[in-house]
Amino acid sequence: MPKEVEAYDRYLQEHHETHLQELFEFLRIPSVSALSEHKDDVRRGAEWVAAQMKKVGLNRAEIIPTAGHPLVYGEWLERPGQPTVLVYGHYDVQPVDPLELWETPPFEPQVRDGQLYARGSSDDKGQVFMHLKAVEALLAVDGSLPLNFKFLIEGEEEIGGEHLDQFIRENHELLKSDVLVISDTTMFDRGLPALCTGLRGLAVMEVRLEGPSTDLHSGLFGGAVQNPIHALAELVAGLHRPDGSVAVEGFYDRARPAAEAEKASLAALPFSDEEFRQEVGAPALFGEAGYSTLERLWTRPTLEVNGIGGGFQGEGTKTVIPSGAFAKITCRLVPDQDPEEIVTLVEAHLMKRCPAGVRLHVRRMQGGKPTLVSPDHPAVTAAANALTEAFGVRPAFIRMGGSIPVVQTFQDELKVPVVLLGFSLPDEKFHAPNEHFDLGNYQSGLRTLCRYWPELASWRPEA
Amino acid sequence: MPKEVEAYDRYLQEHHETHLQELFEFLRIPSVSALSEHKDDVRRGAEWVAAQMKKVGLNRAEIIPTAGHPLVYGEWLERPGQPTVLVYGHYDVQPVDPLELWETPPFEPQVRDGQLYARGSSDDKGQVFMHLKAVEALLAVDGSLPLNFKFLIEGEEEIGGEHLDQFIRENHELLKSDVLVISDTTMFDRGLPALCTGLRGLAVMEVRLEGPSTDLHSGLFGGAVQNPIHALAELVAGLHRPDGSVAVEGFYDRARPAAEAEKASLAALPFSDEEFRQEVGAPALFGEAGYSTLERLWTRPTLEVNGIGGGFQGEGTKTVIPSGAFAKITCRLVPDQDPEEIVTLVEAHLMKRCPAGVRLHVRRMQGGKPTLVSPDHPAVTAAANALTEAFGVRPAFIRMGGSIPVVQTFQDELKVPVVLLGFSLPDEKFHAPNEHFDLGNYQSGLRTLCRYWPELASWRPEA
Repeated sequence: MPKEVEAYDRYLQEHHETHLQELFEFLRIPSVSALSEHKDDVRRGAEWVAAQMKKVGLNRAEIIPTAGHPLVYGEWLERPGQPTVLVYGHYDVQPVDPLELWETPPFEPQVRDGQLYARGSSDDKGQVFMHLKAVEALLAVDGSLPLNFKFLIEGEEEIGGEHLDQFIRENHELLKSDVLVISDTTMFDRGLPALCTGLRGLAVMEVRLEGPSTDLHSGLFGGAVQNPIHALAELVAGLHRPDGSVAVEGFYDRARPAAEAEKASLAALPFSDEEFRQEVGAPALFGEAGYSTLERLWTRPTLEVNGIGGGFQGEGTKTVIPSGAFAKITCRLVPDQDPEEIVTLVEAHLMKRCPAGVRLHVRRMQGGKPTLVSPDHPAVTAAANALTEAFGVRPAFIRMGGSIPVVQTFQDELKVPVVLLGFSLPDEKFHAPNEHFDLGNYQSGLRTLCRYWPELASWRPEA
Repeated sequence: MPKEVEAYDRYLQEHHETHLQELFEFLRIPSVSALSEHKDDVRRGAEWVAAQMKKVGLNRAEIIPTAGHPLVYGEWLERPGQPTVLVYGHYDVQPVDPLELWETPPFEPQVRDGQLYARGSSDDKGQVFMHLKAVEALLAVDGSLPLNFKFLIEGEEEIGGEHLDQFIRENHELLKSDVLVISDTTMFDRGLPALCTGLRGLAVMEVRLEGPSTDLHSGLFGGAVQNPIHALAELVAGLHRPDGSVAVEGFYDRARPAAEAEKASLAALPFSDEEFRQEVGAPALFGEAGYSTLERLWTRPTLEVNGIGGGFQGEGTKTVIPSGAFAKITCRLVPDQDPEEIVTLVEAHLMKRCPAGVRLHVRRMQGGKPTLVSPDHPAVTAAANALTEAFGVRPAFIRMGGSIPVVQTFQDELKVPVVLLGFSLPDEKFHAPNEHFDLGNYQSGLRTLCRYWPELASWRPEA
């Protein structure tokens, strides 16, 4: 282990308490982006980040107003010729209700059993803070950083705000960088850090069937007209085959099969179907035949009806044939599926099968492409090495079944590779009551970053 | 035409304006049974009916309190040895919203183009009023009635209240009668009066599927678990065959086919599929293959999903796999189907097909048996003759696709034949804004009753 690395660890050790107090300050700000009554708190969150950027030694830190909540941009660019890292994160947090389920108040951070409890502790303030403190440690010990850094920390991640996308589109030069690093994903499990090499994309649509011009009395009209609920059930049922696969023609045509090496690596992960089943509480697991649960979750596309509605849904009975019914559908996509094309295929499938007596309307909504990062990319390899040193175990290469739409925007606009290097655990209750962050992982994560940046310094990205 | 009948007509003619003013009074009372703020108005409605019963000459009229809205009972029993007619109707009305769609206020009766506009004008105050005025005419002209009469006018018909059922069960002696006459159905069409000889029964159930113990993120979990919406769609789709028939095993076993004579009579009715389609506004009619629209509506059972719900139904998208989904189901039944048995068959059908990964729960609710009246019953024949004389055209024998649950209670408890002799038109907007009642039919209906009772006087019911 090089001498400097021990020095970073020592610096972090010595400042651990001070840093925790600073993180507490950050976590006390209720920067709930979804609620307008917290607008000023969100602003305070941005100000805190900008001040902290200056404090750790970045030489530019500014709050950038948007039509919504502000962005915070910071940079340290004093190593011309060296690669530039863009760190993305967010300082806004999810709402806290139901408040009564929190064991301690969400904005009064508390450490219990080595876990830091507070809204935003793991998603994502804690991880943003780690990036700032790693920079602080390197600067304190070396008086310099081994790479150039740009930080872009937003305040609308939890509301899917589009102001960041616009900002990225309009600021290619400012954000130009060689690698994008995001710490907003999870480790595979306690004791097993992970690098995420793939995110599923998303195709979004709403389907509406219309039959009679108004709701009809099911006694007076039942038997004479098509019931839009029946027609919708038929259409929805026809979207899957009994073996769990998606029945839409062409749906899998562009779905790139996982490489044998990745399949082997997923199979080697410590994952139990039965434990997973108990966790979700379903009587049985179910999905596309011929694939393991992790393969289905990460490497295979899905089609899910997220909501269905029609007719009378109150208590008791109302004998009605509704004039319409609807279903909200999303597909999770894998490379090289395209959201636009998938919606077109699903729409064609439905149109072809639409029963007589109803009209079908499809509304397309904004989706996102899938992301895949090569596990052999030098920036990923360096991160894997740093994780191995800091956690004492080689990281798992995993994917995530979900989508981070802004990743696709960064990739489309900046053509930059992304490293998804997250330190939270899957059960740390982000978006839920009693969100927490393991302080052991916080410390190992800091050590990871202090090993990652020096190692990455020797990388020479292709022009 | 016997001399007396002309005298009744003359009496009604002479008192037409006075009667209309009285009916206006009745219609001005906003006796909306569904809304607690109208409780006193409903009471006033009952009082008005009781007072009117006395005014027309019944020799007993009383308000009978229930745990809900009161009943009004009246009688005239001065012809021992003659048959006793029980007239049932209701003085409560439906709510009026959306109020802004009324051309004139719902409780300010107004005559336009021969139509009396007001909430309750056709359903059912206008028709209750006709029965009282027919009695008045007969008593005024003859000083007596040709039959014995009992009136039971309720205040909870529009809310499906069960207090009347209880009252019937507990008052067999009071309500003992030879024939039950209800004027709360419709004519076939303008110019074509009708006698309704059948009502469909009703079986009611709610189906709920449960999968994961909580809603799951469709990105993180999609592909690994059964989506309860998919499973429900599969189950609902499996309830019908592509030809529109119900796929539940045994569903049709007890469904008595319509007699060839009735089929011929339905085929002879002036009914246009295309006009009906335009009226309901659906792109096409649809239903069980092999039957005409009227046959499907009146003589065949149905299974309809009246409501479906699950997952996210708000605006936009929420990428969730819901923990459950539900469907509300009713079946319309024909003789000799039994609601209990039908629910059992549907439940067994669903249980057998329930996909892996979800649990199925079925909740049974109160239904009702179908009703069939022989068109050859003397009380029906007499009514048909009266209609023919008053309207100048032979009435159609029709059925109704809907259910009047209290009819079944009357039949079960009192073993009394029922004559469904309604004077409203199908398009008179009961339950909707701008409810109205054709004053021509009101007058022909009054003339019908004044012919019906004298004719029925010669009937000698079997002991």
